Amino acid sequence: MHTTPPFTLFPGSRNWKSAALAAVLFLAGLSLSGQSADSLQIRKIFDESLLRGRSYDWLNHLSNQIGGRLSGSVRAKQAVEYTKKELEALGLDRVWLQPVMVPKWVRGTSEFAYIESEPGNTNNVPICALGGSVATPVGGIKAGVVEVQGIEQLQQLDREEVEGKIVFFNRPMDASLINTFQAYGGCVDQRHGGAEAAARMGAVGVIVRSMNLRLDDYPHTGSMSYGDLPESQRIPAAAISTNGAELLSTTLKLNPGIKFFFRQYCRQMADVLSYNVIGEIRGSEFPEEIMVVGGHLDSWDLGDGSHDDGAGCVQSMEVLRLLKATGYRPKRTLRVVLFMNEENGLRGGNKYAQEALNAGEKHVFALESDAGGFTPRGFSFDCTPEAFDRIVAWKPLFEPYLIHQFIRGGSGADIGPLKPQGLVLSGLRPDSQRYFDHHHAETDTFEAINRRELELGAAAMASLVYLCDRYGLPDQPGLRK
Amino acid sequence: MHTTPPFTLFPGSRNWKSAALAAVLFLAGLSLSGQSADSLQIRKIFDESLLRGRSYDWLNHLSNQIGGRLSGSVRAKQAVEYTKKELEALGLDRVWLQPVMVPKWVRGTSEFAYIESEPGNTNNVPICALGGSVATPVGGIKAGVVEVQGIEQLQQLDREEVEGKIVFFNRPMDASLINTFQAYGGCVDQRHGGAEAAARMGAVGVIVRSMNLRLDDYPHTGSMSYGDLPESQRIPAAAISTNGAELLSTTLKLNPGIKFFFRQYCRQMADVLSYNVIGEIRGSEFPEEIMVVGGHLDSWDLGDGSHDDGAGCVQSMEVLRLLKATGYRPKRTLRVVLFMNEENGLRGGNKYAQEALNAGEKHVFALESDAGGFTPRGFSFDCTPEAFDRIVAWKPLFEPYLIHQFIRGGSGADIGPLKPQGLVLSGLRPDSQRYFDHHHAETDTFEAINRRELELGAAAMASLVYLCDRYGLPDQPGLRK
Repeated sequence: MHTTPPFTLFPGSRNWKSAALAAVLFLAGLSLSGQSADSLQIRKIFDESLLRGRSYDWLNHLSNQIGGRLSGSVRAKQAVEYTKKELEALGLDRVWLQPVMVPKWVRGTSEFAYIESEPGNTNNVPICALGGSVATPVGGIKAGVVEVQGIEQLQQLDREEVEGKIVFFNRPMDASLINTFQAYGGCVDQRHGGAEAAARMGAVGVIVRSMNLRLDDYPHTGSMSYGDLPESQRIPAAAISTNGAELLSTTLKLNPGIKFFFRQYCRQMADVLSYNVIGEIRGSEFPEEIMVVGGHLDSWDLGDGSHDDGAGCVQSMEVLRLLKATGYRPKRTLRVVLFMNEENGLRGGNKYAQEALNAGEKHVFALESDAGGFTPRGFSFDCTPEAFDRIVAWKPLFEPYLIHQFIRGGSGADIGPLKPQGLVLSGLRPDSQRYFDHHHAETDTFEAINRRELELGAAAMASLVYLCDRYGLPDQPGLRK
Repeated sequence: MHTTPPFTLFPGSRNWKSAALAAVLFLAGLSLSGQSADSLQIRKIFDESLLRGRSYDWLNHLSNQIGGRLSGSVRAKQAVEYTKKELEALGLDRVWLQPVMVPKWVRGTSEFAYIESEPGNTNNVPICALGGSVATPVGGIKAGVVEVQGIEQLQQLDREEVEGKIVFFNRPMDASLINTFQAYGGCVDQRHGGAEAAARMGAVGVIVRSMNLRLDDYPHTGSMSYGDLPESQRIPAAAISTNGAELLSTTLKLNPGIKFFFRQYCRQMADVLSYNVIGEIRGSEFPEEIMVVGGHLDSWDLGDGSHDDGAGCVQSMEVLRLLKATGYRPKRTLRVVLFMNEENGLRGGNKYAQEALNAGEKHVFALESDAGGFTPRGFSFDCTPEAFDRIVAWKPLFEPYLIHQFIRGGSGADIGPLKPQGLVLSGLRPDSQRYFDHHHAETDTFEAINRRELELGAAAMASLVYLCDRYGLPDQPGLRK
């Protein structure tokens, strides 16, 4: 882009403050009372995040000084200690750890795999064990391959076509979908349930095309389940990089008789003690009404978990700091919860909800950030139409920040278990185009984080929390007494 | 993010086709006639771009096989040849080169600079000559430094405070602005006019803080001008990386007596012959009405010009391919124009407009992509309120693609010279958060391009061109007879 002043692409660019003022004056004319004060408060939140934000530095530490935080690992423990210390330094009213037993699955020695086109002619391909998978025998598995586009297609095969084989699930994500999470949702059953289905038909192993929209050399891990399959019948399951999947598929077309070899040493250990990290600002007027903002502190082990979900954690911590720094004291109690074990168990989310129920707490709102630290595009809400109407009226306040999407839909996995208690649930919706380049892979690193995008997300979340607190939310149906 | 089906974040994710159909049926109920057909055509365009798009591969070649394309360079020539050949392969009605004389400025041997805190104690800092700058003497320049926050502040100093010194312009971009182009617009006068102002006060050189919102080690070049300063009075000007600027500023605070050394061998050569690359699909009903879609083929020399503006070029080429591939024959003549020399002369844009005037052509619409290959957020329009009203009515057609921003404002530098001829001008508005991480720096490379973001931009542009063609645009005031 050309650069000679006068800079005509955005006329009046130096007068943004008067433009903001004009926007404020315009909004003040709307029927919503207090909109002008809201505009100013939200502008203060964004300024604080963009000019003096802490989220990026916190994430730098989590990602680069600690790293991948698989449940039950030493690094997960370090992350608990670090975030607790940082929350304490913010001067919140209370910071504590909530104990929770979590599963501990370990990857062991790096996986290894190759395609054997004919004896002695092999091509190595990048794979990684799926989370929760069993190991192969120590010497690995070598077997013929049957490629399918999904579980249904597999189940239409005869047992003898599958028995003794490695099943290769190769249905790709649909690149035509604008929301990449939809493309993911349309594929992930292969990773999650493929091994169980294949084992029931006598297969000896499963290879799944990575959940990734681009062609590259990074396998993407993620959780899988054997359902109620007895331990003796469980077969090892691994993800293969998308380039590897293309190579395997092409090689199979040329010669259906090829063999595939893979070896992995992962194993499930006994559950270990871990923690949700919680910090709270006590409400000034309705302290018994609780609002939660959170992300999950655990991550997969291949990258450093910057987007999934270090970003959501530091943004959630930043929400409390932003409100404090801008002088807003919430009327309701505001908690940041860094959930443990979202990736392979959801134990932290379940535990938090159970403890809230046990304690007779009243949660009125929960917001999760768990879709990457990218430019915020909006929020989804799981709530009644009445609550949604109230929320949607705030949309104009977000438009100066190019946040346009307010929709009904899901929220976040960790806060989901709270739902029966009757509250408004919400999820931050960042731009989704790059998410699956990084998700659960070695490429989920701090280098893939843009500081401003991360900070804009934190400010958007803080602004929503501010509005929910200031105006309250209609009661939601729930099991609450 | 957690991954166990049922995937609740986006319910109904596997039924997107029926959702699209529902959207179409809904839109068909609106009062705008033909909206349903438009929805389907736009969906076809996005499918074609995301599933079979060519833009990314073209850009790969431009960036990785050719590289930075400074006006007058061998690579700029290669880019002309390559894009002409690719346009010819698309089977357009006509492809041609439009000759234009362009300035040729060459960087020469790499620049070198250091801060000398005291004799013998130096710190090297990354700099690059500004485009259009003169060289230093062969042995470089070493002088004391005066730091200012802008041209105005410089001009308030006494001449003796500046004489014989290097002026260091260090006003940073304002990170609180959501649109980073506004932050750029508020700073770039230092780069563009700083050297002239400093020379008039007797300075011997100019160092400008790079136009970059993050702190890193990459200097960002860009055009500058000496105005009408005689050649003998011109002083060399360079950009320093943001980290370098921080170091220089800190060092100066500790000791205002430090010296700065820099050396650069850039020079302005005689103008050389180059070309705008043009391809056209002749209109089926109103062939005399011309629509232009374009970007600029030249770039700076430090990176490979992927975002600025290889992206805009391949997206513009893709617009014509997308309309052909989806079976839409435009009623008006549609031209792709790859403009030469936007960065340091705008000769291509001026030439194109002049030739159009000479030939008595009637341009009705021009769209430029020159703000990076990031997720498209909307368009800006330079047009009458009447035309804008018509265009804004199309907004709902773009919302399924998360394109929300339709605003009045500037368009693009290359198409600006057409404005007096009376037409609607428009600019693609991609997400701007990452743009200045790359702009005019070594970091503007193909690795910083996300395929989907690039393809979404091309599809958004093709959709807008389709609508402008299908419904026409109101006449614009102009000098046209």
